[in-house]
Amino acid sequence: MRDLLPREVELRDHATAEILDVYRRYGFRRIETPALENIRLLLASDGGENEKLIFKVLKRGAKLESASSGRDPELADLGLRFDLTVPLARYYADNHAQLPDPFKAIQIGPVWRAERPQKGRFRQFTQCDIDILGVGSEVAEIELILATCEAISALGLEHPRVRLNDRRILAGIAKSCGVETDRHGAFLVTLDKLDKIGRDGVERELRAGGFAEGTVVRLRALLWPADPSTPHASQATDSLERLRRELPSVEPFAESLRTIMRTVADEAGQRFDIAFDPTLVRGMGYYTGAIFEVAYAGYPSAIAGGGRYDRMIGKLLDRDVPACGFSIGFERVISILQEKNGVRVGDRHHVALLFEAKDSPADVFAMARRLRNEGQVVSVTLKKKNVAKQLDDLAAEGFDGYAIYQGGASAGVKPLVRRATRLDEKRHTEERQEDQS
Amino acid sequence: MRDLLPREVELRDHATAEILDVYRRYGFRRIETPALENIRLLLASDGGENEKLIFKVLKRGAKLESASSGRDPELADLGLRFDLTVPLARYYADNHAQLPDPFKAIQIGPVWRAERPQKGRFRQFTQCDIDILGVGSEVAEIELILATCEAISALGLEHPRVRLNDRRILAGIAKSCGVETDRHGAFLVTLDKLDKIGRDGVERELRAGGFAEGTVVRLRALLWPADPSTPHASQATDSLERLRRELPSVEPFAESLRTIMRTVADEAGQRFDIAFDPTLVRGMGYYTGAIFEVAYAGYPSAIAGGGRYDRMIGKLLDRDVPACGFSIGFERVISILQEKNGVRVGDRHHVALLFEAKDSPADVFAMARRLRNEGQVVSVTLKKKNVAKQLDDLAAEGFDGYAIYQGGASAGVKPLVRRATRLDEKRHTEERQEDQS
Repeated sequence: MRDLLPREVELRDHATAEILDVYRRYGFRRIETPALENIRLLLASDGGENEKLIFKVLKRGAKLESASSGRDPELADLGLRFDLTVPLARYYADNHAQLPDPFKAIQIGPVWRAERPQKGRFRQFTQCDIDILGVGSEVAEIELILATCEAISALGLEHPRVRLNDRRILAGIAKSCGVETDRHGAFLVTLDKLDKIGRDGVERELRAGGFAEGTVVRLRALLWPADPSTPHASQATDSLERLRRELPSVEPFAESLRTIMRTVADEAGQRFDIAFDPTLVRGMGYYTGAIFEVAYAGYPSAIAGGGRYDRMIGKLLDRDVPACGFSIGFERVISILQEKNGVRVGDRHHVALLFEAKDSPADVFAMARRLRNEGQVVSVTLKKKNVAKQLDDLAAEGFDGYAIYQGGASAGVKPLVRRATRLDEKRHTEERQEDQS
Repeated sequence: MRDLLPREVELRDHATAEILDVYRRYGFRRIETPALENIRLLLASDGGENEKLIFKVLKRGAKLESASSGRDPELADLGLRFDLTVPLARYYADNHAQLPDPFKAIQIGPVWRAERPQKGRFRQFTQCDIDILGVGSEVAEIELILATCEAISALGLEHPRVRLNDRRILAGIAKSCGVETDRHGAFLVTLDKLDKIGRDGVERELRAGGFAEGTVVRLRALLWPADPSTPHASQATDSLERLRRELPSVEPFAESLRTIMRTVADEAGQRFDIAFDPTLVRGMGYYTGAIFEVAYAGYPSAIAGGGRYDRMIGKLLDRDVPACGFSIGFERVISILQEKNGVRVGDRHHVALLFEAKDSPADVFAMARRLRNEGQVVSVTLKKKNVAKQLDDLAAEGFDGYAIYQGGASAGVKPLVRRATRLDEKRHTEERQEDQS
């Protein structure tokens, strides 16, 4: 867990505002659920590995007394949420009578996982999800993908690429490769590693895992028989066509993906692209249909991911409710934005109004008010002995102007030149290199 | 703990944006600390009653194994923060080298207290604080009071009233009443009940608590000898003058309060007022100087409170750092706003674009984009069988227009008349009554 300094919070607030603005224009509305949920809900949620990482909250008072003979699960009654999807399903089950149908939710908030501390992983981090509950058709997928890609573009991350697949197509592939139903999970876990270990690695791991040689051969025939020099987009088209030919049972799911791709591509124009990827798996156990991820050039991991989970809410309610969601990896996006630019967020002029201890506070604050009424951010600041150093510090903090209070006369605002930060320097160097190339 | 429905989140987001806008114009900058802090920090923080209400987080893995023989304090290593002041002091101690001096922080975020559930009290609730660290003069108090009152006014809560006192003046009163230093706390706890139990009640409780009759008589002479018909403002002026005359030792603190009141009154004009109140105590143990609250007409409890706490950071750092903060009771403010008006937040036009399952998604989404580009919020929605009921529901959800997709032709947006909600009806009734009076 970590503290956020003002400059980072400003970037995060800016990103949040941009994302919310796009999502709201699509008719999504923000909701909030509490950080703490019933520990039994969290432990029965198909959350996979994440369930092991729950921060559990100790029972209190008499309840703890009566439990203290027992062990770990007896000691806790609440847990910190590890994602925003499980709480959303619980929220919908509890509040659906007061919610629109369909319900289009935005959630931006912290989640907690007791991971071992390591670079780029935090034990408290922000997730940013949109979900559509109550829509069974691919209109939901289309809207989620369009809104998410537009939000990512609005942040200045140009040309995101969407990868798309369907869990039912993956099941069709596994079946066609002769994998027994109870081993589909293990088969897909290996396929999911393609990005990391390559085709040879996947085939090796399947053999090592006891899958038959026929499975490996059939998988190869279904997924990568093509000349690797074929361009990416037509490869994707080809692979969907090939799967339709080879696996007639996946026809309806393939048709649905085609509708999603055609509609999204129409709307996307040159701004982002979308392609079928039969090797996209995604980890969560609860997906039931389309699954999707967003990749951003130059970064290995996805910056957004989601899919359809039509059977989660039914576990909490007396009926199934179709559901589909898309989650932006907020922390990853922020770290890309930090790498891309050290630019100042916000366009207001920041002025430090320097005064001395002998000055009348009433006059100093009246002057601050006049400057503020002109639309400037004004910070009333006691003048230090070493004014030159103080002005330097203020410039480094992001102030672009200062005024010195002088006995009631309205002193003019003078500019402050911001010292380049290390990030700025890096950016300037890169720009210079680009200019030279 | 509770779920927040879209309409409530919209009101909260609106209020947060208004408050942040004012605070930022004053040069405050938002920071964030994690929800979980070291349990030892929380338990040693002078937080009074709140320390008993900490949600404690169970140790994990080997650490829990080795602790599970022990009792409650052995089992937990982290706790959920119960306020934003203790984490701020820890944040400053850890990060001061990277922070401006003085440091003006905004914090808006959830805190947790394991209270017994009751009306209007929640176990997770939002606090909204500004703090100035590094300023010892009353400039800090002035800036905090001006910014907080302006934020409250910006929310539409007109004419807040600030009550002001100083812990050192309270100590002077206690001493002058013959109260031993180790009983100052008990004495002030009783005085703090004045609002609830009245002057007679305070005097009765002091006697019952074993304070001498001389203490009661002296307190009466210091605080309420005046004719109760004297107007409020001049009563306040009188009481500060009287204390200066009677207790020469409080003179410097009284002078400082006078500077604060004069400057704030100058800036406030008719928008809000400020008055000395020698009976204002405030509960927290950590205050060392000026203390203040904001009252709003018609509501018994304060809607904001704060004060100076110059010795908290010194416990975590090798030196004392002067500090002063003001916290808006966000939940209370929201509930007042909910009572005051059921008005819709935001000024964008909300349009539902209705389509049928047979329509081409590509064409429907293209039309949605055109409407969105005109600045409207557009929600793509499957047309239901009973369209009249659907339009009614959409109006109730806050949509003000709808369009029906018709085979590529750009259907016009038609208005939806929103059904009055119960809150609207209440408001209309009140307005009518006002018109009649």
